[in-house]
Amino acid sequence: MNVEAYLAERRAVIETALERALAPTDGVPRSLLEAMRYAVFSGGKRVRPILVLMACEAAGGTHERALPFACAVELIHTYSLVHDDLPAMDDDDLRRGRATVHVAFDEAHAILAGDALLTEAFALAAAGAATTGLEPTRALAVIAVIAHAAGAAGMVGGQVADLEAEGVRADIALVESIHRRKTAALIAAAVEVGALAGGAADAALRALRAYGHELGLAFQVADDLLDATASTAVTGKREGGDAAHGKATYPAVLGVDGACGVARALLARCLAALAPLGERAAPLRALATFIVERAAGR
Amino acid sequence: MNVEAYLAERRAVIETALERALAPTDGVPRSLLEAMRYAVFSGGKRVRPILVLMACEAAGGTHERALPFACAVELIHTYSLVHDDLPAMDDDDLRRGRATVHVAFDEAHAILAGDALLTEAFALAAAGAATTGLEPTRALAVIAVIAHAAGAAGMVGGQVADLEAEGVRADIALVESIHRRKTAALIAAAVEVGALAGGAADAALRALRAYGHELGLAFQVADDLLDATASTAVTGKREGGDAAHGKATYPAVLGVDGACGVARALLARCLAALAPLGERAAPLRALATFIVERAAGR
Repeated sequence: MNVEAYLAERRAVIETALERALAPTDGVPRSLLEAMRYAVFSGGKRVRPILVLMACEAAGGTHERALPFACAVELIHTYSLVHDDLPAMDDDDLRRGRATVHVAFDEAHAILAGDALLTEAFALAAAGAATTGLEPTRALAVIAVIAHAAGAAGMVGGQVADLEAEGVRADIALVESIHRRKTAALIAAAVEVGALAGGAADAALRALRAYGHELGLAFQVADDLLDATASTAVTGKREGGDAAHGKATYPAVLGVDGACGVARALLARCLAALAPLGERAAPLRALATFIVERAAGR
Repeated sequence: MNVEAYLAERRAVIETALERALAPTDGVPRSLLEAMRYAVFSGGKRVRPILVLMACEAAGGTHERALPFACAVELIHTYSLVHDDLPAMDDDDLRRGRATVHVAFDEAHAILAGDALLTEAFALAAAGAATTGLEPTRALAVIAVIAHAAGAAGMVGGQVADLEAEGVRADIALVESIHRRKTAALIAAAVEVGALAGGAADAALRALRAYGHELGLAFQVADDLLDATASTAVTGKREGGDAAHGKATYPAVLGVDGACGVARALLARCLAALAPLGERAAPLRALATFIVERAAGR
């Protein structure tokens, strides 16, 4: 399959749904909505929400059923970027080639836009049961999966661990422990959420969970590799930003070749996990392969 | 009834439930949990979660059924205080007589502890359906009510409007529009959440919603009055902090006597709203009366 064409088509579906989710609403201050929209519509690749749709289809569902949950996951990802970029955190002024939210607006609006995106994610997910006809107990499971992945033992905990590891001589166990929570948890949640929305039975749910678990880490290793080797023109971020921040990354601990090896091993485990799912999982295979090979070669 | 004794007894129930909700958990960094607990266990009055329990009982439920949702509302209230106190927002260094979270820890931990509290609130609420046996569709309604009240058209929107109104010559319509979103929305949500958890039928749900709507605003007018007239020893905040910030408040626009009149009128509407509920609503009546009379006299 042509993975780039597939992703472009899916991205368009997500953009339309996000537009609807972030339309002007009574009571929402204009400046707040502008800051939220600035953060959300900034050329993101939409990997997480596309994963939700893919996993839903791999489980036998139609992608419409997963759309509100896909948007919820993307809003949470976006809020995390806005808060991570703040001066008190990573202090980044550039993201995807544009000024970060606290630079384009101000710190207060960046903090509050992040808070609002996180909160609206749960509003969308809670409303999603009614609009999609998803069984209410499954919708509650979806919300629990998202909250757990995004919360203190997941993404937020990973960001704390990441900040506390800056300048510390990290070993591979620390790097994996940070990455598992900071990035991999939400990627894995995206896959699980899609599987739940698609009505996956136990065996398919287990297979998709295993895939998400490996893909989450593979994704972050690939991101580390691109940060270490690619230019601002490719990443939209300051070149070598991780190294400048003394961040705990795979290339920093294992070298570029070592990190490439890890990424390829994780890809093999992603593909093995999908074996029970047959042809319906072809897009998930293609996506994992695309992400890893772009950063680590074949 | 002796409202202070009643509140003390209910507060103890909430403290125990919050302790359980914020116990050490695998993957949660110690510093993050400490900052979250510092914010949550700081002598708050627990008005919102107690309202959840009260409304649940007024609707005919047992308070155990409402406990996870009560804790969720309190975690959201707490996160909002942590973020509002940040240097980029209200820049307060004192809250309830203690250093605010970003002073006691640092800004990054304050932002992230707030993010984690907000996220864990939804994790608690999503898990609450299973632990309390609440009907899943009602649990989804609870989550939607909380998210809407806390989100861009509610609390976060109110904080944005409040910051943007600093130093502006506010009229009563602007003050009410800010207070409705910034404070009243979450108070009203607490009452509605309790009503939903208690299995309120349509008429009771309408009565409780009306009560919550009026109480939310009454609560904020009372808070404005205490800020304008009481000392740090009473409020735990810097004396006259609202005036120093040029905040849009009821006393600033109507004077202390005018604001007292508004508070008493809102109290009368709270009590009228509860008329259909009879004796089961006695605690809700007593609480509204207590809150208003403490600040505005009889």
